[in-house]
Amino acid sequence: MTNFIEIDQFFDRKMDESIQELSKLIAQPSISATGVGLQECAQLVVSMFNKRGFRVYEFSNGIAPILFAEKEGKCEKTILFYNHYDVQPAEPIELWNSPPFKPEVRDNRLYGRGTCDNKGNITNRLFTLDAFEEVIGEYPCHVKFLIEGEEEVSNKHLADFVKEHSSLLMSDACIWEFGGVDHTGIPVQYLGLRGCCYVQLDVEVANQDVHSGIGGSIFPNAAWRLVWALNSLKSQDEKILLPNFYEKVIPPSKRDIELMDQLPDESNYYKELYGIKGFLKGIQSGTGLKIAEAFEPACTICGLTSGYQGAGSKTILPAKASAKIDFRLVPDQTPSDVLKQLREHLDNQGFNDVIITDLGGDLPERTDPDDPFIQILVSTAEEVYGSPMRIMPMTGGSGPNYIIQQALRIPIGTMGVGYPEANSHAPNENIRLDDYLKAAKHLARALQKFGES
Amino acid sequence: MTNFIEIDQFFDRKMDESIQELSKLIAQPSISATGVGLQECAQLVVSMFNKRGFRVYEFSNGIAPILFAEKEGKCEKTILFYNHYDVQPAEPIELWNSPPFKPEVRDNRLYGRGTCDNKGNITNRLFTLDAFEEVIGEYPCHVKFLIEGEEEVSNKHLADFVKEHSSLLMSDACIWEFGGVDHTGIPVQYLGLRGCCYVQLDVEVANQDVHSGIGGSIFPNAAWRLVWALNSLKSQDEKILLPNFYEKVIPPSKRDIELMDQLPDESNYYKELYGIKGFLKGIQSGTGLKIAEAFEPACTICGLTSGYQGAGSKTILPAKASAKIDFRLVPDQTPSDVLKQLREHLDNQGFNDVIITDLGGDLPERTDPDDPFIQILVSTAEEVYGSPMRIMPMTGGSGPNYIIQQALRIPIGTMGVGYPEANSHAPNENIRLDDYLKAAKHLARALQKFGES
Repeated sequence: MTNFIEIDQFFDRKMDESIQELSKLIAQPSISATGVGLQECAQLVVSMFNKRGFRVYEFSNGIAPILFAEKEGKCEKTILFYNHYDVQPAEPIELWNSPPFKPEVRDNRLYGRGTCDNKGNITNRLFTLDAFEEVIGEYPCHVKFLIEGEEEVSNKHLADFVKEHSSLLMSDACIWEFGGVDHTGIPVQYLGLRGCCYVQLDVEVANQDVHSGIGGSIFPNAAWRLVWALNSLKSQDEKILLPNFYEKVIPPSKRDIELMDQLPDESNYYKELYGIKGFLKGIQSGTGLKIAEAFEPACTICGLTSGYQGAGSKTILPAKASAKIDFRLVPDQTPSDVLKQLREHLDNQGFNDVIITDLGGDLPERTDPDDPFIQILVSTAEEVYGSPMRIMPMTGGSGPNYIIQQALRIPIGTMGVGYPEANSHAPNENIRLDDYLKAAKHLARALQKFGES
Repeated sequence: MTNFIEIDQFFDRKMDESIQELSKLIAQPSISATGVGLQECAQLVVSMFNKRGFRVYEFSNGIAPILFAEKEGKCEKTILFYNHYDVQPAEPIELWNSPPFKPEVRDNRLYGRGTCDNKGNITNRLFTLDAFEEVIGEYPCHVKFLIEGEEEVSNKHLADFVKEHSSLLMSDACIWEFGGVDHTGIPVQYLGLRGCCYVQLDVEVANQDVHSGIGGSIFPNAAWRLVWALNSLKSQDEKILLPNFYEKVIPPSKRDIELMDQLPDESNYYKELYGIKGFLKGIQSGTGLKIAEAFEPACTICGLTSGYQGAGSKTILPAKASAKIDFRLVPDQTPSDVLKQLREHLDNQGFNDVIITDLGGDLPERTDPDDPFIQILVSTAEEVYGSPMRIMPMTGGSGPNYIIQQALRIPIGTMGVGYPEANSHAPNENIRLDDYLKAAKHLARALQKFGES
């Protein structure tokens, strides 16, 4: 049996080095929405794996290479890590307290775009493996990494890649890209993700903006067309109005509700963190809030653009208007169903002038909370955090885990460096250094037990 | 009686010099929405009047000085020109074929921000006066200019200025800032302007943007709140839904409809110019279109801003959203009534979270088409354009002419260098050089007759 005293000492001793490696990775922008820095960041990741003696495979797709790395360990039992090196855009830049791509430690937190989502989890996993290499001389199991660069833009090339290379990826279990503690400091096993259907809606009514004094009463206005079209998608009581939208929705099971019930109430925490006054649909707190967050579909306007947006007034009638819309889906809804429903709905409502652009989608997916691998991740947390992981049977986010699960049919668990104030996708993204350290200690114990299982 | 042969020869000979003077004025940005270059532009205008021996008065208001200039002529009859040296923002810059503040002649047109609205009219009027100075040795009447720098931002300081300095401004008649020919090349006497109430609507629901995977189903979304609030303002059949909004609307008189009926049909012209498929409210063409354009109020969304507006997808729930809205008003609607109605309406509809910022307003105003001064402007066009001016009894635009009229009680006519494709307030603003020349010739005849009247 491995003695974790030396392993933990390694973590304490080498923490700064790992944070330096992470900082270098953050300093290399890799924004998949705009394409900035993807190749350069992929090369940086490749060098990190080469340095450690992994066999690294780089699969080019002309945009953001998919990386695969593997290295043998003490046994043939194989763990697959899924991560991504791309990040969300940093806008609005002016809301950051330090530059998003100049990582900075303040108050025992590391700030920078990608600290939590997802670069911090890449270096943290390598940090854990380094401990085994130095203290034991070998990894506790066979290790594979699948790291892509299009996670934030709906994983455009992942599905084809996984289908084509399923034998290369074959493993006994998978640890997903993210994870972390809740606001009480206890780590959460996030199981299952909602699906996503992300579209842009565009309206164009003229070849140029027109003086509103001339056209206001007689010309079509792209912004008005868009507002009316959007208004038709969701009523003020949050009911999504696409035809048959709710038809395939599977409500949470008794076991789901039981697990949700065991999770702490986050209502006051959310209110304070985000400065919001209350929740939608008349929900106050408790299990109802948790169920609505993860087990109900959503239709979110992520962005609106039209006409004049500068200071003061400009009296124009906009020729163009557009909105970015994110539908979150629960089993068994699918992005392709939603695209069809959306087109049908807009046509039915008289909005055939609204153009839909599909910006990508994910299927919803679930994982069995009672799988033995999941139980290893859950139980090994106790030694580090003083409590086993809490199990969240479904989460509100989305991702491509359905791709892995459909291809490999293995359990997929989550663990990582995150915490609720990490501001993933928002200004001032950060991780707490203490979480980073604990995540490595937890993962070391989980991998050891997995190798022995 | 003045012989216009020599005057017209002056115009033909000195045309290039006047266009150079105009180009210099355009090259000095003066964007009142952002405050860029206002002081510098005012100084340039002052120097143009000083050079010509005007007495120039500069009234500072800390933002954009109001300029007054006067010079005696052959008789005591006094004409007042109202102009402005500020311009609209040039955005979206990428749609300009040449830089907005580097004036350029192409195809006998001068391109640049402010060519038509309103710098071209300032230099054109000076060009006309220069002809009298050189050919006759004196102006045909007493000349006053009132030139401000906040016309595009609702003339914030003009009303107080006019009230305070009404004796300085006292005149027999006024020629307004703009004017020009219609798409058949015949000049139009624009009489009357709609009022305007320009507001910004802001919604803020959280202290930061939130990951849409977390918040989509449970957190308020500023963009949705804004869309629903906007939707409540106007129905898809263009009916403005504020309480009592239409109560004070005075429909056009028989004489108004008769004058509108004499104007050419602009429906096909508008469709071709702006690339629009049709008009609102089921109107096809003809007098109905002209009446709707000028005699009906409007509610225009001039701009929308919220969340992510870059390329591709970003899965956020926006904390803030805002819209710029321009209400066009007809007699006897007032901006202050509309502000009250808007607040009341939003509160009634459950949108007390929507903040209204008043960005300025104008009262609607009308001028008698049968006033003798107006008839001078109309009839003197014939010698230059081969036709008297057409009379438009009301126009869709807005401006501060109600301020002058309430203070001085004089007729206000329009004439100028514009044409329908001038793209005022839009990219590629321009004037035709031929229109510029004709406008000077017309104004010379009108001023001569005015002096003799």
